[in-house]
Amino acid sequence: MDYKDVVAKIKDYYKEIYLLSHVQAILGWDQETYMPEAAIAERAEQAALLQSLIHKRRTSDELGRLLEEAGASSDRPAGAESLSDTDAAIVRETYREYSRAIKLPEELVVRFAQVTSRAQAVWQKARIEDDFGLFAPVLSEIVDMVREMASLYGYQEHPYDALLDEYEPYAKASDIKRIFDAVEAPIVELVQRIGEINQVDDSFLHYKTDKEEQKRLSLALLDKLGYDFKRGRLDVSAHPFTTTLGSDDVRITTRFLEDFLPSSIFGTIHEAGHALYEMGISADLHGTILADGVSLGIHESQSRFWENVIGRRRSFWQKNMQLISSAIPALSDVSAESFYKAVNKVKPSFIRVEADEVTYILHIILRFRLEMGMVDGSLEVNDLPDAWNQQTKALLGIVPKKYSDGVLQDIHWSFGGIGYFPTYALGTLYASQFAHAIEKELGSIDELIAKDRLADILSWLRDKIHKYGKIYPADELCRRATGESLNPEYFIKYIEGKYGDVYNLS
Amino acid sequence: MDYKDVVAKIKDYYKEIYLLSHVQAILGWDQETYMPEAAIAERAEQAALLQSLIHKRRTSDELGRLLEEAGASSDRPAGAESLSDTDAAIVRETYREYSRAIKLPEELVVRFAQVTSRAQAVWQKARIEDDFGLFAPVLSEIVDMVREMASLYGYQEHPYDALLDEYEPYAKASDIKRIFDAVEAPIVELVQRIGEINQVDDSFLHYKTDKEEQKRLSLALLDKLGYDFKRGRLDVSAHPFTTTLGSDDVRITTRFLEDFLPSSIFGTIHEAGHALYEMGISADLHGTILADGVSLGIHESQSRFWENVIGRRRSFWQKNMQLISSAIPALSDVSAESFYKAVNKVKPSFIRVEADEVTYILHIILRFRLEMGMVDGSLEVNDLPDAWNQQTKALLGIVPKKYSDGVLQDIHWSFGGIGYFPTYALGTLYASQFAHAIEKELGSIDELIAKDRLADILSWLRDKIHKYGKIYPADELCRRATGESLNPEYFIKYIEGKYGDVYNLS
Repeated sequence: MDYKDVVAKIKDYYKEIYLLSHVQAILGWDQETYMPEAAIAERAEQAALLQSLIHKRRTSDELGRLLEEAGASSDRPAGAESLSDTDAAIVRETYREYSRAIKLPEELVVRFAQVTSRAQAVWQKARIEDDFGLFAPVLSEIVDMVREMASLYGYQEHPYDALLDEYEPYAKASDIKRIFDAVEAPIVELVQRIGEINQVDDSFLHYKTDKEEQKRLSLALLDKLGYDFKRGRLDVSAHPFTTTLGSDDVRITTRFLEDFLPSSIFGTIHEAGHALYEMGISADLHGTILADGVSLGIHESQSRFWENVIGRRRSFWQKNMQLISSAIPALSDVSAESFYKAVNKVKPSFIRVEADEVTYILHIILRFRLEMGMVDGSLEVNDLPDAWNQQTKALLGIVPKKYSDGVLQDIHWSFGGIGYFPTYALGTLYASQFAHAIEKELGSIDELIAKDRLADILSWLRDKIHKYGKIYPADELCRRATGESLNPEYFIKYIEGKYGDVYNLS
Repeated sequence: MDYKDVVAKIKDYYKEIYLLSHVQAILGWDQETYMPEAAIAERAEQAALLQSLIHKRRTSDELGRLLEEAGASSDRPAGAESLSDTDAAIVRETYREYSRAIKLPEELVVRFAQVTSRAQAVWQKARIEDDFGLFAPVLSEIVDMVREMASLYGYQEHPYDALLDEYEPYAKASDIKRIFDAVEAPIVELVQRIGEINQVDDSFLHYKTDKEEQKRLSLALLDKLGYDFKRGRLDVSAHPFTTTLGSDDVRITTRFLEDFLPSSIFGTIHEAGHALYEMGISADLHGTILADGVSLGIHESQSRFWENVIGRRRSFWQKNMQLISSAIPALSDVSAESFYKAVNKVKPSFIRVEADEVTYILHIILRFRLEMGMVDGSLEVNDLPDAWNQQTKALLGIVPKKYSDGVLQDIHWSFGGIGYFPTYALGTLYASQFAHAIEKELGSIDELIAKDRLADILSWLRDKIHKYGKIYPADELCRRATGESLNPEYFIKYIEGKYGDVYNLS
């Protein structure tokens, strides 16, 4: 068979997985937005069935034969040189997914699904009752299982690499460690300097604000950022998320807290960033394995870029403060300057999802180090709370008094997502590097904003990042877009500049 | 293998079809309620994939072998006497569905899906442009195909039986003809008598009414009828519908027309009737082929019962008029009596979906006769408009001036639904017979309503009809519930009594 025919067959074969994955997303979206409460039992069965249909198709002998025909396991299969970057990436990514999936015995996959399903319920209870002892046994089970998985997947340097690979393909724990080590000291130092200064006033952010008014503001912001309502919509859920229900159906959710307006503003902008990425994937890739974000780190770079680099920027509010005053008349006397300072308040706190742009990465460094220890066996689950508190003290200068403010705060470990956290920090770091590249090519972001040319910024992101989907691995994509691999110096310069200004540091 | 083991295997096998059908319903619900417009292209692909997965499983050799082991093709398979009614019905219905499905070659199924998909677009255009000539060619194709299908399915008396069987299993066209012939004259005569009397005043039904107020009223009505919001919800769509997304997830939609309040009131009550049926199916049947309405006629009997027998009843509004006045203050001076008369106005009209309770059946008789002619070849598609107009004149005394008010008004033929219409009339007739049986057992419905005991009525319907799902075919279900087969006399007595009163006929 001609090499291109094999690739065409792989694409055909994958289309059903593509469609079923979106069907799964439809079920998930409905579950989080509109589903009546008693429907949950059967919904879980429906989702499990779809999961199993997809898994079967992802690991089938038929796909294995096609990939073998394509010589996908070799770095340079004969005939492959005739392929476009896109077709070569289709073979590479299909093989990547297939070869990871078949390494785990079905028994382990099923058991992992059961344990993590139970663990999520246990975690919720443990968090409410503030009882780490309740969660520890099932977390130990999960840690044992992910260690087993890591050894089945295989790795060159550290078992963590095999887990990280699920969320940040081709990344290595050693690279992340190097990057985190580089940013730690400058962040800690900046936070300490800020701690010695008078704090900014953000009391008006807690004024009671009507949910309908907040919704109007969210819709206006989405429109301003270029979110396409023909290809998506905004709904409400307990936790904001973005989900792709179809090539032309990328929906986001937010939540409206009556006593904390920034939650919906920055939640909406954050999710819009994710959605703009998915919406910007080239239509040529629709229906293929490549029509997806290349990594969670790059995905998060898009949400953080819009949320922080743009959404928490002085010039953005200087230009767009009237969006707030027309949606929420009660806030019409708040100045752009006070708003800008209030939404950039930096202060060490216990809860990651409430952390500011500066301290956020310290929360991730903490989790990354603890996860590395759990995965390589140097940290026992029972020792986790102490390690958590010691590291929090070292990084943030504070110690949580409750497990629910500390080691029990995140859902990730309960669903088995060890290796996930670093991607949040990578996103923040990539965002600064992209912002720097944009300014090099398009000139000052402040000027673009002042001229109401956010669309130019979106076009740059589309052209350099979004449209490629998974064609290029994250590192290659970053080099193509910015000329170098991820370099944390851009983030350090960015926060030192921005917060030096917010807090008048000399 | 033990006979019961075979049945257990059939049940297990069917579970996946059950779940996938509900997943299909989730996609359909989303498409009609919240889906952004550009998503339609991929949504059609997703739905087609699910349809094909379900079809494959419904017609697989594996299922054929299980059914053979169960001796399902024989009326009394050896060993079957040990089965419960439920298990016997599982074998019967699974075989029924399987044997119908395998009779059609895949080529025909695919072609039918393509032709009817195209036909729906053609029909919409033809209706807008009021051009029957545009629709005639594709309708001819559809008629040819359903005739071919009827001969492949097989039938004893009339090819129409084979089509009707899709919507009203086990029914015969000859029975329907006999019933329709029996009701025609009394209805026509009643309509003529009403036509000679002063018409009731329903002008206030067209007052402009806020959609939010209408929604409040719909929610209050649903609550009053016993609709369970933990197992369902109310949304808005262009055409009201009920859909089952899971055993505990039965959702309805309605529409709010600002200048015609009854549309949402009776649309909501009608759909609630369908939903209460699905919600009332015994939990023991969940996950099986029996957890479904037994026929469209019985399904429609439940919607018509609540919409007309209860919802358009004087005593209902005497008791519940405050639901309207508290939701819609502007109508607080409308009396129960004026409201009752206004919503029971009888007048021949062209559009079936806007017809009153009395003339509605005449619209169905018309369509049934024309369909019979098309299916047995005695009526050519090109002669359809003339036949339509002549029959409308004979039945309703009026002649439409536009195709869109006549032969082009309904979507059904464009999706190939020939054999569907009679079920609407059967529903109306069944509803009267059930009402009669309820009064025989529970006493006067007016008194139950006066005592706010609608729940007793719902319990009767659950106990006699809903809970059985598809265990008993419609005719047997009717005999068990009311002591006799469908008898149109109950309907004739009901409308003669009710409308004699509304219009003061002597």
